[in-house]
Amino acid sequence: MTPYKGNLSSSIKKTIGKISELDKSSAKLAAKRLDNLTKPRGSLGRLEELAKQIAGITCTLNPDFSRKLIIVMAADHGVVDEGVSAYPKEVTPQMILNFLSGGAGINVLSRHIGADVLVVDMGVAGNVEDTKTIKTSKGDAGKTSANLITIKVAPGTKNMAIGPAMTDEQAIASIEAGVSISEEMISAGYGIIGTGDMGIGNTTASSAIAACLCGVDAKFVTGYGTGIDESGYMHKIDIIEKSLGINEPNCASGIDVLSKVGGFEIGGIAGVILGCAAARIPVVIDGFISGAAALIAEVLSPKSRDFMIASHCSVEKGHAIVLEKLQLKPLFNFDLRLGEGTGAAIGINIAEAAVKILNEMATFKEAGVSDKD
Amino acid sequence: MTPYKGNLSSSIKKTIGKISELDKSSAKLAAKRLDNLTKPRGSLGRLEELAKQIAGITCTLNPDFSRKLIIVMAADHGVVDEGVSAYPKEVTPQMILNFLSGGAGINVLSRHIGADVLVVDMGVAGNVEDTKTIKTSKGDAGKTSANLITIKVAPGTKNMAIGPAMTDEQAIASIEAGVSISEEMISAGYGIIGTGDMGIGNTTASSAIAACLCGVDAKFVTGYGTGIDESGYMHKIDIIEKSLGINEPNCASGIDVLSKVGGFEIGGIAGVILGCAAARIPVVIDGFISGAAALIAEVLSPKSRDFMIASHCSVEKGHAIVLEKLQLKPLFNFDLRLGEGTGAAIGINIAEAAVKILNEMATFKEAGVSDKD
Repeated sequence: MTPYKGNLSSSIKKTIGKISELDKSSAKLAAKRLDNLTKPRGSLGRLEELAKQIAGITCTLNPDFSRKLIIVMAADHGVVDEGVSAYPKEVTPQMILNFLSGGAGINVLSRHIGADVLVVDMGVAGNVEDTKTIKTSKGDAGKTSANLITIKVAPGTKNMAIGPAMTDEQAIASIEAGVSISEEMISAGYGIIGTGDMGIGNTTASSAIAACLCGVDAKFVTGYGTGIDESGYMHKIDIIEKSLGINEPNCASGIDVLSKVGGFEIGGIAGVILGCAAARIPVVIDGFISGAAALIAEVLSPKSRDFMIASHCSVEKGHAIVLEKLQLKPLFNFDLRLGEGTGAAIGINIAEAAVKILNEMATFKEAGVSDKD
Repeated sequence: MTPYKGNLSSSIKKTIGKISELDKSSAKLAAKRLDNLTKPRGSLGRLEELAKQIAGITCTLNPDFSRKLIIVMAADHGVVDEGVSAYPKEVTPQMILNFLSGGAGINVLSRHIGADVLVVDMGVAGNVEDTKTIKTSKGDAGKTSANLITIKVAPGTKNMAIGPAMTDEQAIASIEAGVSISEEMISAGYGIIGTGDMGIGNTTASSAIAACLCGVDAKFVTGYGTGIDESGYMHKIDIIEKSLGINEPNCASGIDVLSKVGGFEIGGIAGVILGCAAARIPVVIDGFISGAAALIAEVLSPKSRDFMIASHCSVEKGHAIVLEKLQLKPLFNFDLRLGEGTGAAIGINIAEAAVKILNEMATFKEAGVSDKD
């Protein structure tokens, strides 16, 4: 299937045009060095695979990961009106404030791995600044807060159960924003970027995207999200099926799928992935929502897949199918289902370990260790 | 089956006597706090499980993990005379020197996670100091080296294919050494300890222990170690079967199994596990050799199991069976088969992340985030 690019902007086309193959010679040099390090060949398994992939991505054996970033794309979803989520819509801006004051899961894990957090308001309903909170001092004390960029393509998508979630122009704008932000961050020196999401209702949009782009019925890629009950679950599947039926997204077009059943944060993440791939920076994919965005990115640029590192396989039912479709093997399965980039943060830490193995271990010759007969 | 403790020393009996249950009230407090943090309940999956286990181990929600340690127990194995390993025996002391100069995999990963490395010569053949190396400057520059403690129960075990690998007294001495070292390190302020091993031939001993204590044929728990070929593999199984047949270890006695078909580093690791359990310090178990030691520890003190955190499931065939026998669920599978504590180092880092989640995330109330309806 040839990707349908008819309605892409020239800016996105330019980014996609920059996405090339992995650099085989760097990957080969990495493989050669790994084989000479003081360990049985291949005995560091996936860490070695990762080191080779990263060499192929970055065209060097020693990429600079001293600056690490999680980009949390946030937006609201009109489909929440259908009662598909366990949490109310106001949680999206409330959680953004939580990110900014350093009290969320992604803040804790980013500090743990030495990464910064950038939150992007891609389309939250209402102003984050106006959000009422009853913050106490606990959330702030001595914690690195996140930075916020406000893009706000629109104040939340429209209800996809009635019509398209957004216009084609908005879909393009959300991807372009993701590309621009990744370019800016890469210019600022970030050497590895993890994707994250926040948006009440976004597992519903992601399941619709996954059903469409993996070519399976909605029920196979729909999960319990933040924790709906059994009847809520059946209802969620109905709403996704209804949305797909009404909108008939064209699976050959990433833009069409995104505009019909997507979300602004999902478009933003797809843009970040494309921007990283174009700049040859490893992009660590978080869970199900980031996976749906990766599917969109992959339709737009199949080569972008090679620049993705799948951090984990989440509890959310569709994620394993998404990863299989992308032919990405996740690094771990911690039964996570939080989003925010929490899995990606741990994935970045493992990627950094892999690069250190490649660069800091002694060779048999250097250490005077006898090699295998 | 009642553990057979007839031939235990009073010192080991005393340590075992100190090993108690997990503290249910701390685990419950941790669960309660986790449920109030700004995330859907249970959405951090295994990180939440780990945080609760660690609270139960340490009797606090906020254990001090500022000092972290990997203990690499090293020893040689007489059974190497049978040609069961892909690497020559001299690699054991050579690798110890590599640890001491900071060039091995475990050094790199320990630096990555902020842990120290302690190497223990439990019974290396020959003097480590006399080992010839052709070290260049590369291995040293700016790298944290490891500390070395020399116990040397004996210069390598005897060939278990002919008779017992060691005497009962040596088995007891190796466990006691592990207990003492862990006690000393815990007194020095280490709050979490990972186990590691180095010893050419030790997958052969570990497979014999696993066959015995998991009650399965040797072929089900024998793998390719550092990388033998197919005929070497068949030979390795034969040697393990021969060793078990000649020695007839008593599976009800950890000491008997260790003395008949074990190794000094395996006894040392079992001692570290018991010492950590007695002091209520989480002990992160590495791969197959550490798993065999964990089996010995579990026979000596079934309760010690609750204090273990299984880091990974290794490529080495018997490891999954060992973990199942211990009812331990590994955190990840990176197809590792290096040993040294490399998987344990990554496991410690994840355990630290879990504790930070428990302590540093804001609650719904603190952050002013609306909870689920």
